Amino acid sequence: MDRICYGLLIAPLLLVGAAWHSGGEGVARFGDVSKKLLDNGLVEGEARAMLVELTTAAPHRLSGSAGAARAVALMKSVMEKRGLDNVHLEHVMVPHWDRGTVEKAVILPSAKHRSVELEVCALGGSIGTPGEGIEAPVAEVRSFEELKSLGDSAKGKIIFYNRPMDPSKLYTFEAYGGAVDQRSRGAIEAAKMGGVAALVRSMTLAHDDVPHTGAMGYISGVQKVPGAAVSTIGADALDGLLRRDGEVVLQLTLDCRTLADEPSANVVGEITGSEKPNEVIVVSGHLDCWDKGMGAHDDGSGCVQAIEALNLLKRCGIRPKRTIRAVLFMNEENGGRGAQAYVAAPERARERQIAAIESDAGGFAPRGISVQADSTVLTKVLQWKQLFAALDACKIQKGGSGADVSALADKGTPSFGLMVENHRYFDYHHSDNDTIDKVNERELEMGAIVEALFCYLVSEEGL
Amino acid sequence: MDRICYGLLIAPLLLVGAAWHSGGEGVARFGDVSKKLLDNGLVEGEARAMLVELTTAAPHRLSGSAGAARAVALMKSVMEKRGLDNVHLEHVMVPHWDRGTVEKAVILPSAKHRSVELEVCALGGSIGTPGEGIEAPVAEVRSFEELKSLGDSAKGKIIFYNRPMDPSKLYTFEAYGGAVDQRSRGAIEAAKMGGVAALVRSMTLAHDDVPHTGAMGYISGVQKVPGAAVSTIGADALDGLLRRDGEVVLQLTLDCRTLADEPSANVVGEITGSEKPNEVIVVSGHLDCWDKGMGAHDDGSGCVQAIEALNLLKRCGIRPKRTIRAVLFMNEENGGRGAQAYVAAPERARERQIAAIESDAGGFAPRGISVQADSTVLTKVLQWKQLFAALDACKIQKGGSGADVSALADKGTPSFGLMVENHRYFDYHHSDNDTIDKVNERELEMGAIVEALFCYLVSEEGL
Repeated sequence: MDRICYGLLIAPLLLVGAAWHSGGEGVARFGDVSKKLLDNGLVEGEARAMLVELTTAAPHRLSGSAGAARAVALMKSVMEKRGLDNVHLEHVMVPHWDRGTVEKAVILPSAKHRSVELEVCALGGSIGTPGEGIEAPVAEVRSFEELKSLGDSAKGKIIFYNRPMDPSKLYTFEAYGGAVDQRSRGAIEAAKMGGVAALVRSMTLAHDDVPHTGAMGYISGVQKVPGAAVSTIGADALDGLLRRDGEVVLQLTLDCRTLADEPSANVVGEITGSEKPNEVIVVSGHLDCWDKGMGAHDDGSGCVQAIEALNLLKRCGIRPKRTIRAVLFMNEENGGRGAQAYVAAPERARERQIAAIESDAGGFAPRGISVQADSTVLTKVLQWKQLFAALDACKIQKGGSGADVSALADKGTPSFGLMVENHRYFDYHHSDNDTIDKVNERELEMGAIVEALFCYLVSEEGL
Repeated sequence: MDRICYGLLIAPLLLVGAAWHSGGEGVARFGDVSKKLLDNGLVEGEARAMLVELTTAAPHRLSGSAGAARAVALMKSVMEKRGLDNVHLEHVMVPHWDRGTVEKAVILPSAKHRSVELEVCALGGSIGTPGEGIEAPVAEVRSFEELKSLGDSAKGKIIFYNRPMDPSKLYTFEAYGGAVDQRSRGAIEAAKMGGVAALVRSMTLAHDDVPHTGAMGYISGVQKVPGAAVSTIGADALDGLLRRDGEVVLQLTLDCRTLADEPSANVVGEITGSEKPNEVIVVSGHLDCWDKGMGAHDDGSGCVQAIEALNLLKRCGIRPKRTIRAVLFMNEENGGRGAQAYVAAPERARERQIAAIESDAGGFAPRGISVQADSTVLTKVLQWKQLFAALDACKIQKGGSGADVSALADKGTPSFGLMVENHRYFDYHHSDNDTIDKVNERELEMGAIVEALFCYLVSEEGL
């Protein structure tokens, strides 16, 4: 693009700009606020600088780890430095799973093929293998139904789940939802059939050699067997060998383990409401992340956006009627204990949680807000559509919110999710790819701007 | 993001999906086409594979260069392999500017500071310096007005234009439009005031050490002086030294030059319309690019999307009534000769160009379509809004189209621009940063899907 086309492309913007001052009295009142937040955020925004600080000091922040403890202390101090009100920790006991230092999967040599090492990582919550590893033939399946159809032939095998995320889905979260049962329940179903381990194709649409971790579960009464993820390139290689040679024997070695629960905390700070301080609007992300990459998109972004939303209101000299509170939840990834603790805390009895929004889909360009609430609330939020259009984020529709704030939704609080451009999310999610260089400063800041506007509108107008 | 929130986030999608089958008869008719294009594109799409081929074989494709010639031959063969109809070249003479091998700017040592080398590159179209370079004091300005106010003190100086793109603009194209006069006219205005060269802050919102090139001009009657871009980090360093030390002497050396015009071509292929073959819908990008990076976003993306839009219709077995034609224009960056030649070609007299769309804002996630045409056309396209909503690209608004297709707009053809997510574009634009790894496969393909649907709708429904 060059020459004159920039001139041509500017024209549509003027129309959008006009949205700030059209659309009725209610909207017009807030047009100036929206403009102020946008200008200030794009020029003086601090979201990415905070994310650099977080991901440098504590790239790995899995619940119970030393990194998570560093992150808690750091973000409390970040909130204090920005002059937030009532900055404090709300303590919670969290699970502590540790990856250990060995995660290895080797295809053993046979008459038909050479030895091949696959890129794997333990799934969160998995038990380890014996020190010498588990050595067993591989049985490939694409579903639990297919696994069951194997009958006795699954016994003693490493069950290899290889159903890809469906690329035909426009929304990658839908593709994730259609594949993640293999990761979350794969070890359970494998054990039920006599399998000795579960190896799961990574939950990503990218074709690369990076394994993606994530939570897996066990249930009582079913033997625990180890679970690991294999990169998509590794999964395709393994699939190819199985098709060609019939039998493949894999040696899987993991020394991960679950330790005793550890004390940790949600990090909380706010702008106390000038008129209704006990009515609280929560803006949030989760501070824990997996021990791969830096948790830059998942969910360092949501955390710094929550703080920056408040910071931005303060920089603009905007004092809300109701309290707007940033909550950085602990333990979203493997337990949700932080969200449960927040809801159950005795302080909540003295407050009304009137709305909660979470950003947990990455620090990408915001597209709008999903509404987990009844139609009255949706109608109310839709009245603000033009204000969000002026921020280029005007998709407002019923849907989910976020794993943490849905604990508030369960108690009747209207809950919301920041919707963002979604195509790249699972390229990075839960893997070594989720690093700070993947987060664009403006896109990240725009999310904070949208959240700041949303919280302020709820504060002034109610729901 | 983990646990249950993917489940919650799926809900909104179902609502969007419903758009395929709501919105009246006209829209319903095309719902299945839209769904088919989406499924096929996301699963079997070839846009990114074509872009890899192009950027590998011809990363540098500046008009008149050997790379541009390779790109022309390659893309013709790519079209032929996909079985497009009437694949041919439309010849055009283009300018041939060559960067040479030396581009260097050194702050000379003084009593107050050491020698510092700045990251610079010649601007496209610039003359070179004498072999030993130009050595002159630097005068910093932020506008042509400020330059004029310098009066005689500008004489003999290297004029350093340091007005940044305005980060407060939501649309980066608007920020570009507000700064690019410094690049395009900087050398002219400098020379008018007796300046000996122009050094321009790179047109980017990124803060890095990568200079961004782009077109600059000369006019008759004003002496030609060299023009170069300096990285934003370099610009800030130079600004800092000037503020601190008062005087900075720079030595600028460039051996770029303009050679004789070269023969080149637009690359054209189509699906011939089944009912009205002489009514043509153009889908386009520009094949030339600057000789930095790989022209992956600018505008390799637009080229492969144009071919892929046709390819996708063919893979889906969809035969349009009117002709849909991919045109890869030559020489958008520094002349626009390809677009002029297309419009003026004798073949055009036997055809009606009924619409033209261009993708030239990068291979990012599509957001919608801008309409450079009268209100009747806008109203017509707005009737299709729900179809584009199902592709998550439903912004339809008046605005510009693209530098190439605006040559068709000038002749009365309704012209359109593919609007995409825009925050990152100028981080890469015209620089070594514009490489294939910055282009996401799904986002690129989505642009082709939106273009395919748009062209098909125009083909079947007219405008």
